[in-house]
Amino acid sequence: MEINKLQQLLSEMSLQEKIGQMVQLTGVYFDKEAVLTGVVDEQLPPEWIIQYSGSVLGVIGKEKICDIQSKYMEQHPHHIPLLFMADVIHGCRTIFPIPLGQACSFNPELVSEAASIAASEASSEGLKATFSPMIDVSRDPRWGRIMESFGEDPYVNGVMGEAMVDGYQQKNDEGIAACLKHFAGYGAVNAGREYNDVEISQRTFLEQYVKPFRMALKAKPAMVMTAFNAIDRKPISGNKELLRDLLRDKEGFDGTVISDWGSIGQLKEQGVAANMDEAASQAIEAGVDIDMMSPAYMFRLEELVKNGQIPESFIDESAFRVLMMKNQLGLFENPFAGIGKSGNLTQYNRTKAYQMASESYVLLKNEKILPLSQKQKVIWAGPYVTSKEFLSRWAIFGGHEPVETIEDILQDKKINGVCIPGCRMLSEEECRIWQVKPVDSDEEIDEQWLETINREDTVVCVLGEHESQSGEAASRAFLTLPEEQQRLFEKIVKRTDNIVTVIISGRPLDLRRISEKSKAVIMAWRPGTMGAEGIVDLVYGMINPSGKLAVSIPWCVGQVPISYWDIKTGHVLTEDNLENRFTSRYMDIPNSPLYPFGFGLSYTEFDISDVEVKIGQDKRVHVHCNVSNTGKVTGAEVVQCYYETLQTSVVRPKKELVRFQKVFLDPGEAKSVDFSIDSEEFSYFDKNMEIVSSGMQLRISVGNSSDHECGSSEIYI
Amino acid sequence: MEINKLQQLLSEMSLQEKIGQMVQLTGVYFDKEAVLTGVVDEQLPPEWIIQYSGSVLGVIGKEKICDIQSKYMEQHPHHIPLLFMADVIHGCRTIFPIPLGQACSFNPELVSEAASIAASEASSEGLKATFSPMIDVSRDPRWGRIMESFGEDPYVNGVMGEAMVDGYQQKNDEGIAACLKHFAGYGAVNAGREYNDVEISQRTFLEQYVKPFRMALKAKPAMVMTAFNAIDRKPISGNKELLRDLLRDKEGFDGTVISDWGSIGQLKEQGVAANMDEAASQAIEAGVDIDMMSPAYMFRLEELVKNGQIPESFIDESAFRVLMMKNQLGLFENPFAGIGKSGNLTQYNRTKAYQMASESYVLLKNEKILPLSQKQKVIWAGPYVTSKEFLSRWAIFGGHEPVETIEDILQDKKINGVCIPGCRMLSEEECRIWQVKPVDSDEEIDEQWLETINREDTVVCVLGEHESQSGEAASRAFLTLPEEQQRLFEKIVKRTDNIVTVIISGRPLDLRRISEKSKAVIMAWRPGTMGAEGIVDLVYGMINPSGKLAVSIPWCVGQVPISYWDIKTGHVLTEDNLENRFTSRYMDIPNSPLYPFGFGLSYTEFDISDVEVKIGQDKRVHVHCNVSNTGKVTGAEVVQCYYETLQTSVVRPKKELVRFQKVFLDPGEAKSVDFSIDSEEFSYFDKNMEIVSSGMQLRISVGNSSDHECGSSEIYI
Repeated sequence: MEINKLQQLLSEMSLQEKIGQMVQLTGVYFDKEAVLTGVVDEQLPPEWIIQYSGSVLGVIGKEKICDIQSKYMEQHPHHIPLLFMADVIHGCRTIFPIPLGQACSFNPELVSEAASIAASEASSEGLKATFSPMIDVSRDPRWGRIMESFGEDPYVNGVMGEAMVDGYQQKNDEGIAACLKHFAGYGAVNAGREYNDVEISQRTFLEQYVKPFRMALKAKPAMVMTAFNAIDRKPISGNKELLRDLLRDKEGFDGTVISDWGSIGQLKEQGVAANMDEAASQAIEAGVDIDMMSPAYMFRLEELVKNGQIPESFIDESAFRVLMMKNQLGLFENPFAGIGKSGNLTQYNRTKAYQMASESYVLLKNEKILPLSQKQKVIWAGPYVTSKEFLSRWAIFGGHEPVETIEDILQDKKINGVCIPGCRMLSEEECRIWQVKPVDSDEEIDEQWLETINREDTVVCVLGEHESQSGEAASRAFLTLPEEQQRLFEKIVKRTDNIVTVIISGRPLDLRRISEKSKAVIMAWRPGTMGAEGIVDLVYGMINPSGKLAVSIPWCVGQVPISYWDIKTGHVLTEDNLENRFTSRYMDIPNSPLYPFGFGLSYTEFDISDVEVKIGQDKRVHVHCNVSNTGKVTGAEVVQCYYETLQTSVVRPKKELVRFQKVFLDPGEAKSVDFSIDSEEFSYFDKNMEIVSSGMQLRISVGNSSDHECGSSEIYI
Repeated sequence: MEINKLQQLLSEMSLQEKIGQMVQLTGVYFDKEAVLTGVVDEQLPPEWIIQYSGSVLGVIGKEKICDIQSKYMEQHPHHIPLLFMADVIHGCRTIFPIPLGQACSFNPELVSEAASIAASEASSEGLKATFSPMIDVSRDPRWGRIMESFGEDPYVNGVMGEAMVDGYQQKNDEGIAACLKHFAGYGAVNAGREYNDVEISQRTFLEQYVKPFRMALKAKPAMVMTAFNAIDRKPISGNKELLRDLLRDKEGFDGTVISDWGSIGQLKEQGVAANMDEAASQAIEAGVDIDMMSPAYMFRLEELVKNGQIPESFIDESAFRVLMMKNQLGLFENPFAGIGKSGNLTQYNRTKAYQMASESYVLLKNEKILPLSQKQKVIWAGPYVTSKEFLSRWAIFGGHEPVETIEDILQDKKINGVCIPGCRMLSEEECRIWQVKPVDSDEEIDEQWLETINREDTVVCVLGEHESQSGEAASRAFLTLPEEQQRLFEKIVKRTDNIVTVIISGRPLDLRRISEKSKAVIMAWRPGTMGAEGIVDLVYGMINPSGKLAVSIPWCVGQVPISYWDIKTGHVLTEDNLENRFTSRYMDIPNSPLYPFGFGLSYTEFDISDVEVKIGQDKRVHVHCNVSNTGKVTGAEVVQCYYETLQTSVVRPKKELVRFQKVFLDPGEAKSVDFSIDSEEFSYFDKNMEIVSSGMQLRISVGNSSDHECGSSEIYI
């Protein structure tokens, strides 16, 4: 529809119709089977809201959505289509690895393809918008939602966020609207406790937490979602400074701002609004276009406009943005656009999910044990060897049915391996805590098989968190493995030294013991539908691990929050002063995490050399290096370029990632890697909060991990 | 000396002499036996600096100091006396409980008396200034320095800080100069790691971390020490905004600002100064009068003044402040003022230390087991029963010789108790980690005594951290008991249910297991010289516990940082929605700490009633209540008054302490408690960082713990 026709439509709409566009209801008001991702108030919305509500969340299914859409449009005075949204976070029917795993691929093209497949499957099932990607910088593994982020680095979050938005918003009728979330700072919740307050300086907020949004906005996402938290004690959903002034005016976002579930109404619990009138006023003044599931807009907006407390121009502005989004999705031309066009879980989609899983795995340790030979005796142990639970709480529309188990894969591939779960995934007490229905197992687990393990046997342990232990509303104070699994591991340790451990998890765990007692450790995150095949193929060398950590694996929970970009201190711990108490350190553990950001091993060896840094005639910083595969198998290295700002008026991070490139190389092959970086990308706020992007001394380094440099050079820009 | 004579003196001093006043050297340049509390550079100070240096730290002893002083003054062109400073943190020769323990007494008069005794002992030994009190709000028990603070509450830190300054700076020649430290924010080091960067908002910094300084400045401390950290990435030792504009101009501080050890030189490591010239310039422009042990002032100041980079007026200003401080201490009249006047460890001093220790103990749990009867069979177990190590790393001049052990006390009091250490304080590995010389113990610890414990026997376990595990440069990632002690406890658990555990510690520990398996738990902190007698007397009921927690005991390390004044969230966990995942919570532990701030039991019962809140004609808020002892023994209750600000423009803490009073009551006795509070004390920064101190709706409550209210009322001011 042309813009002027859309404006004409708006002018013909009643106030109630316009407010309707600004209210998002959960699908339960339209469909009994809808998925709930929050708490529904007992109070029912007014009838006219259900009639005019502009969007719905949590409903899926061709027939169902066609049915709801048809009935809704018929009764709507202007026959405006509903917009169906849902949490399609890491795949729709074909489930890809969790975003944290995807980030470890350091392969944005692949991340984009995965999002594009998710969009096709979702739109085929009637969805036209997703609340993804989440690009909250996440440094605290206690926070369950770390699984949904791209890890601890602002730049990686920005690159992956942009790639994912591109993938979702493909330019055909299978594209769906993407939503950057959560603007902003949610990843810094205090003490890693879900929905907690955020305590950071304005500077860190802008430099580290807003940065990925600035980057990903280049992909023109249709929506941005507000974060639950406050920044500087001002809740985002009522924060004009951040939404209108920063996001819209400064960063140029012209799409739709949507609240998080109930976050406008929560302004009352946060103490900044006395009632829903104040909550609604604050949110609309801040520029929140859609109220997701709070009583504020649906109950109070009409009266607030009528009595003049809110100018109708605010309503027009927001309602028009929602209409624009629907228009950009082509819904006015075809309210059923994309429905039924794509197949679910096609061979192509599964192949891509397999590829994404394979590239997300990070080989943390390998003492000459991997890859295993198919000829040797291998026992696969742990509850994950016979389980399909490789998905996540955020794989809402995935389902376990299409997932193959490791046991299935070994059989399919005719690999000779014994598969023994050995224990339950969670104990009864853990099931209670995590609100999981306990698996019936009256029978005592038979432990005689343990006796059959000989000292020279190899055991592959596949252990990890339950799906319910990460995602939204899943903060943990302990980063341990489930207790029965840890005990199983200890029993196996007593039988053999040849242990390979594969960890399935939505967050970094405390892997000290696992790492100490295993000859090889693979971090497989939550790998999705094709996870099992990827794991088997990696263990037997059909694929070569190429993932790098997008988040530090801490030494223990007492070390968090931690990141490679921690701010400098005046008491520097170095290799030379390890015995000096008076450095910034813990006495009982090292300062370094167990495995650092950017780290990951391969079955081959790489050499990065000839690092050169210079300023081009284009005034950009040019970084060059050569990377070669010096080993015996094909593989991929992630070349990482970091910078450090020297002599600044404020204390700054030790290093910050500014570029990376994944390079695929055959044995003996070499490639040159060139990065070209605009000086703006090194900018920071000086002590007066003025942006500095020139007159800087930089130390630029290239390496294959945040803790391993292959060359560095100082440069003045 | 009169001010104009002092000004005359200044005008006659050479530039080098004046700079000398601004340099503090460690005593090693004057005395081989001086105590080192930091790292000494290999580069020696210039000879003239040793000649003119205005103050010395870490030297103690009448003869020694008289000798150094005499020689120094003789050679000094203007015969200006040296000022001897040292870390007298919780007593000089008579060691009182650590400040965190003292705070738990909630008895500021007693804290003041303790400081006054410390001052007398210190000045008698030649010291005229101490680097105490530390009033850094401390919410993270990983930080070793939490022991030196008054805990997590800004108000308690302010009250106790003021009391301690009053005590040190007694108005006679036994008074010593006090030093508020560390201005400011050091207690918020990220992830509890010593000397780490601090990441907080300007608002939280001003409201919670600067507040205790504002309060304690009323006592007119002679000095304020700068914190090592940066705030908003601007290191304090070079931060004009915070030192000149806030501390001096706004808060009216007119004493001497001293750096922390080496912190001016560390501006280089923090990246904000390219060299010592820049470091010195930044520090002096920020208003740091004395450079403690960095190369900046001693090597660079003279040249910077000579070449005009620093105006000499800055030097005059700072040097004059140091002279003023010496003058206020009476050093010009008598450079040996106070020396030899007081005895060490007098009966009076010991009695006060006993009283302070007794009031610092917090009874956390008591299932009808305490007090014990002297008639029953009691086994005292754990390495602390025969140890004198009740002091701390900060009891530099205390020494263990005068400390009695629990075994000694039981013998003295003819109480029939078996004392069995049962294990070492620290394992060899722990000794290595904590840089402690391992105790020789080739002999296997005999465990046959364990067999003699019968089910009905009572065992008092006295367990805890080693002295070296808290204090400066003692951050821990684990909050566990030393490993052998934990194992000992488990062995005792197997023998009897009648366990009383006394914890000796410089920080809150993870006491879940101890608390679960003990019928009574006493948190005794690090109690000082008279600690053992206090513990025995409390266990047998000669004294009634009256301490309250000045810091939360967290559930586990995965819950920190935590405090009762945590900021509100939009997802409130209540008693009614415990099964709701979508609240701000961890799934695997409760939100509440194991024991909350303000909590502590007694051997008697108290009733707080008739809570009334009203505004007086004086415009102040008047809070009244009655408190009575409804039990059978004399005791003391700490009446605590909290407030909550309702409907504000920013999210605020759930509650904040505004008054407390410790009330001593005989059985059946009742007293009324009245608090009068100025509206200024409820002030906070609104969303525009304007101070609000009226037009506020408050909820004021009175209780005996942060989690237990006996009455509350809303009021509008």
